[in-house]
Amino acid sequence: MESIVAGIVAGIGGLLALGYAGLLTRDVLKQSPGTKLMADISRGIQVGAAAFLKREFRYLSVTTVVTALLLGIFLSWPGAVTYIIGSLVSFMAAWIGMRVSTRANARCTNLALKSFKDAFKAGFSSGAVMGMCVVGTGLLAVAVIYTITRDVHLLVYYAFGSSLTALFLRVGGGIFTKSADVGGDMVGKVEAGIPEDDPRNPAVIADAVGDNVGDVAGMGSDLFESYVSALIAAMFLGYYYKYNPTYASLMLLLGAAGIVCSIIGALLVRVGKGEQESFGAQTKKVRSAMSRGIILANLVMVITTFFLVRHIVGDMNVFFAMVAGMVAGVAIGWINQYYTSDSYSPVKHIAKSSETGSSTLIIEGFAQGMLSTVIPVAIVAAAIVASYQWGGLFGIAVAGFGMLSVLGVNLACDCYGPIVDNAAGIAEMAGLPHEVRRRCDALDSVGNSTAAIGKGFAIGSAALAALAWLATYMQAAELKIIDITKPDVMAGLLIGGLVVFLFIALTIKAVGRGAYRVVNEVRRQWQEIPGLREGKAKPDYAKCVDITTRAALREMIVPGTLSIVTPVLVGFFLGREALGAVLMSSLTVGLFMSLFMANSGGAWDNAKKYIESGAYGGKGSNSHKAAVVGDTVGDPFKDTAGPSLNILIKILGKVAMVLAPLLLALM
Amino acid sequence: MESIVAGIVAGIGGLLALGYAGLLTRDVLKQSPGTKLMADISRGIQVGAAAFLKREFRYLSVTTVVTALLLGIFLSWPGAVTYIIGSLVSFMAAWIGMRVSTRANARCTNLALKSFKDAFKAGFSSGAVMGMCVVGTGLLAVAVIYTITRDVHLLVYYAFGSSLTALFLRVGGGIFTKSADVGGDMVGKVEAGIPEDDPRNPAVIADAVGDNVGDVAGMGSDLFESYVSALIAAMFLGYYYKYNPTYASLMLLLGAAGIVCSIIGALLVRVGKGEQESFGAQTKKVRSAMSRGIILANLVMVITTFFLVRHIVGDMNVFFAMVAGMVAGVAIGWINQYYTSDSYSPVKHIAKSSETGSSTLIIEGFAQGMLSTVIPVAIVAAAIVASYQWGGLFGIAVAGFGMLSVLGVNLACDCYGPIVDNAAGIAEMAGLPHEVRRRCDALDSVGNSTAAIGKGFAIGSAALAALAWLATYMQAAELKIIDITKPDVMAGLLIGGLVVFLFIALTIKAVGRGAYRVVNEVRRQWQEIPGLREGKAKPDYAKCVDITTRAALREMIVPGTLSIVTPVLVGFFLGREALGAVLMSSLTVGLFMSLFMANSGGAWDNAKKYIESGAYGGKGSNSHKAAVVGDTVGDPFKDTAGPSLNILIKILGKVAMVLAPLLLALM
Repeated sequence: MESIVAGIVAGIGGLLALGYAGLLTRDVLKQSPGTKLMADISRGIQVGAAAFLKREFRYLSVTTVVTALLLGIFLSWPGAVTYIIGSLVSFMAAWIGMRVSTRANARCTNLALKSFKDAFKAGFSSGAVMGMCVVGTGLLAVAVIYTITRDVHLLVYYAFGSSLTALFLRVGGGIFTKSADVGGDMVGKVEAGIPEDDPRNPAVIADAVGDNVGDVAGMGSDLFESYVSALIAAMFLGYYYKYNPTYASLMLLLGAAGIVCSIIGALLVRVGKGEQESFGAQTKKVRSAMSRGIILANLVMVITTFFLVRHIVGDMNVFFAMVAGMVAGVAIGWINQYYTSDSYSPVKHIAKSSETGSSTLIIEGFAQGMLSTVIPVAIVAAAIVASYQWGGLFGIAVAGFGMLSVLGVNLACDCYGPIVDNAAGIAEMAGLPHEVRRRCDALDSVGNSTAAIGKGFAIGSAALAALAWLATYMQAAELKIIDITKPDVMAGLLIGGLVVFLFIALTIKAVGRGAYRVVNEVRRQWQEIPGLREGKAKPDYAKCVDITTRAALREMIVPGTLSIVTPVLVGFFLGREALGAVLMSSLTVGLFMSLFMANSGGAWDNAKKYIESGAYGGKGSNSHKAAVVGDTVGDPFKDTAGPSLNILIKILGKVAMVLAPLLLALM
Repeated sequence: MESIVAGIVAGIGGLLALGYAGLLTRDVLKQSPGTKLMADISRGIQVGAAAFLKREFRYLSVTTVVTALLLGIFLSWPGAVTYIIGSLVSFMAAWIGMRVSTRANARCTNLALKSFKDAFKAGFSSGAVMGMCVVGTGLLAVAVIYTITRDVHLLVYYAFGSSLTALFLRVGGGIFTKSADVGGDMVGKVEAGIPEDDPRNPAVIADAVGDNVGDVAGMGSDLFESYVSALIAAMFLGYYYKYNPTYASLMLLLGAAGIVCSIIGALLVRVGKGEQESFGAQTKKVRSAMSRGIILANLVMVITTFFLVRHIVGDMNVFFAMVAGMVAGVAIGWINQYYTSDSYSPVKHIAKSSETGSSTLIIEGFAQGMLSTVIPVAIVAAAIVASYQWGGLFGIAVAGFGMLSVLGVNLACDCYGPIVDNAAGIAEMAGLPHEVRRRCDALDSVGNSTAAIGKGFAIGSAALAALAWLATYMQAAELKIIDITKPDVMAGLLIGGLVVFLFIALTIKAVGRGAYRVVNEVRRQWQEIPGLREGKAKPDYAKCVDITTRAALREMIVPGTLSIVTPVLVGFFLGREALGAVLMSSLTVGLFMSLFMANSGGAWDNAKKYIESGAYGGKGSNSHKAAVVGDTVGDPFKDTAGPSLNILIKILGKVAMVLAPLLLALM
């Protein structure tokens, strides 16, 4: 009875989010996309992004069907069905969010012609569409499956399905976006000396498409996966460790509460008129609007959690664990911002080291990136110890969910970034007045710092979700302990780190090869299309998008396979305990490398922007040249390998979890 | 009785090594150091290196006395005494080896004027002095302590003492060498455009001193520590896990056998005359001479081990574990060479990526470095699983010792590198004919690839020694298992990785600051000493050495303290099990990062040399400029942070081991 009520409430919460997303979409789409040229550019991005996702969907659906058949034959047919649902729902959320974001960009640019306030609103609203779609569809599907089946095991298959989609979108999108970006820059900015976003560069649309498929769709599916993972792990462990389905119901209700709080938060993110204000004043306005929304959403959530927990289970430890997760998430986001924003000393140090050339800039960024892992990891360790005190492994899962409880509004702020980045690009490509570009840049510069916070959440929540997943694996594999003094466990710990290092190497090399193809294609077009270099002819943008798409999908296969095959091989050859060690070690090493790569990459990027704003000689100086090297090195770090690690560490746990019954049967 | 015989045999083995080192020293020193200019340069290096070691010794002796007092008061006075012995003996071995190497450099240059063969012999012989001093003093002291006390616990204190020295010499030396090298290059090659080793650069002697204190003394004390750690851990575990002191005696005899085999190997390393031959033919000769010596030493050692094990304990599993370690060591060395030598595709790829600029070169080197960890870690994992099968935790310790059993000859090849590097530098500084420089370069180029192999041994053996040390810690702390499902153990695993990342960041930043001081000093001298830039006046080399010395010693304090304080804090606040997790995790993360840093750094270095040999435009081309950036980034990776990690992971284990009784008492 109680579970049914909770399921219905959660379902209503999910629908509420989707309804709000629908309203926002209507508001955004009723705006004009501007001149024909602007609409054309936006259309090119839409078509390219959709083409990529469609082709990716073909690969994904084949993989999903094959895996579902295997799951059905060896494990469970109902599980195979929820697995497919997870894969599809996750894809759908990312698809809708990205469709809106690719339509919002030109509208945002066009609004920026007249009003700073309206341009911001369009950008943020379309970001919020992604945020609401992710939490809405995620929670709704969990509620429906749980209400109908009342079986937490089936939810695990659902989460596994969402992992597969996330793997495709995050890794494939990450390779796409950086192949286009790095390749385009290498041949455009460096070789031909034309500015960024110049319409004569055939890779410029592919670059904009990359922002959408990588940073919007990829980020969305990544956090969809984290969100449902954290939720389901908490439901599963609440069910098993507490021997009480009421805990599972509580998690569903907390999910619904989180959606309401996210909507409240999103409604509060508004800026006043500010056309005449300075760049600094505008960015400050945007930044404080977002902070206000996020902080209020969190505060309301804390209060709601307090009453829900007290009323439903009465065990206030659950409340403390939730709050520990929320505080940890905000703290990690803040630390990431400290290490990547040019308002603080780390980025300033890196920028200063550009004076002695690119080597010192790289070394300094490397060291700062390593350093930036220390406090976030300490926070994660503290959150683990604290939330375990308050509820064992279930407590850890609750903290993981707490970190993501108001994901709706957090993700809105994340996805806002690439949308306004696109808007600024369109202003450039369409040759709009300098004032428009400046307004878009003001919107964009905030996007960069929200990206750092967003990555912090993505990484922190991935670590806790992976940990919760390790706990569910142990439950399913009937492991009481994992003893590191056994040689197979030692080997497992080494293998866990090895997978992370191999995965990073593979994804980075994939970007290198992808960028190389883009470079060759751009060179070919410049050679073969007469008048292109002079701006008299139009390049074949679609061809560039197509080549990048093919490259990204091909390059995704090996790292993707690695993340699925490793647990299978370790499980069968070294056993259950070694597999647990692989999960723990990949989580540890992955957490460090993911923070390191996100923050060093972000810091190099902002050090370059800081120099471009006039420091150390500004644009064109030797310092700037050194900073460009750092920025390019950081690109695959922060946008390909780093974020892909979040998926890796989570998917290893789910494959292990799904395998567990087989491993037990083979004993 | 049996232990006494074994102790005496081992003592004789140690004396044999020292005697051989004495003969080699006599042979080297009776050569002429060449012209007055050459002798002066060599003298400058000697004085600078000795000054650094002396000042370091002052810090070291204070730390040693304070720690010994603490050990005496809280734990054991006899332990405090063997601790001091370990610290002193280790320092002495490094001191003697370095004194000879700093005298050998000019002699090697002078011999290269006339004979390639003799120059090689002088370089290799002085490398062998270090090799023999390390194994000779190491084994002799263990034999004496064990024969007198028959207490394996006291040996642990001895090993702990050697760790402290290694920490000072490896970390301090690593910071010194790269501060001088990077600082000197930045201001000399980059700013002033004068060639490397140009006598007008005031940092040029400091750079040569750095090779000796970092790569000779630092490497020597590092491997001294690994050698005695592996030996003592095997003796300790043989004693406790096998309940049989005969196993401890066996290890002593294997140590003596290893010395004899090392001497045989070293005697076989000779080249014929080759003055008229091409560069390629000369390097090939040197390379095959060294391979011959190492391979034969290993083969003889395998046979000797077989008979010793069969005769003394009859348990052939010990033989298999030894051989597993030997094979793993050679295999890791070979893989490292594959990833860092310009004869194979990884370095060629990196060199090729210089065509598209320094960013792609850095990214490619980064990815190759990550990739290079995969097989060595898999080898370590396989060695762990296999040797555990053959003898439990004792088997792992035996494998660790097996890897180092013929250290005498391996270390000779390692230390040969910096000596001939110095010789080449002296040829340049003294303005000798081009032919001499070319001969020295031929000798040096082999030194680079032996360095890669040597680093492989240092890393692999550090990992196994650290693992053996974890096992002895667990024995001492009465821990049966370490269960990663406990929150404090999870936190411990995160903290272990955190220490590694923090340590890397600190040592890299230390090099940055040290280099900055060197730059300022060189600029000052150029400004204040009239005629210096034109080569009419002599720079104040000693001042540069002094500044680098101060910087290195100051910068050493924080990372050094970190490695000692961390286990204390974790032990007291999170408990024994969490401390075990810290050891395991720092070992895992440290192994990856150490391999990654050594190999990416080595690969960038050799990619630059490959381009300098004429590929992709050769010296002065844009490709070369890009490669110089990579080389500079790699410098602190491969020569400071990477090697220092070996010490970190071993010292954590020893501090834990020494703390164990206190942690138990506080329970």
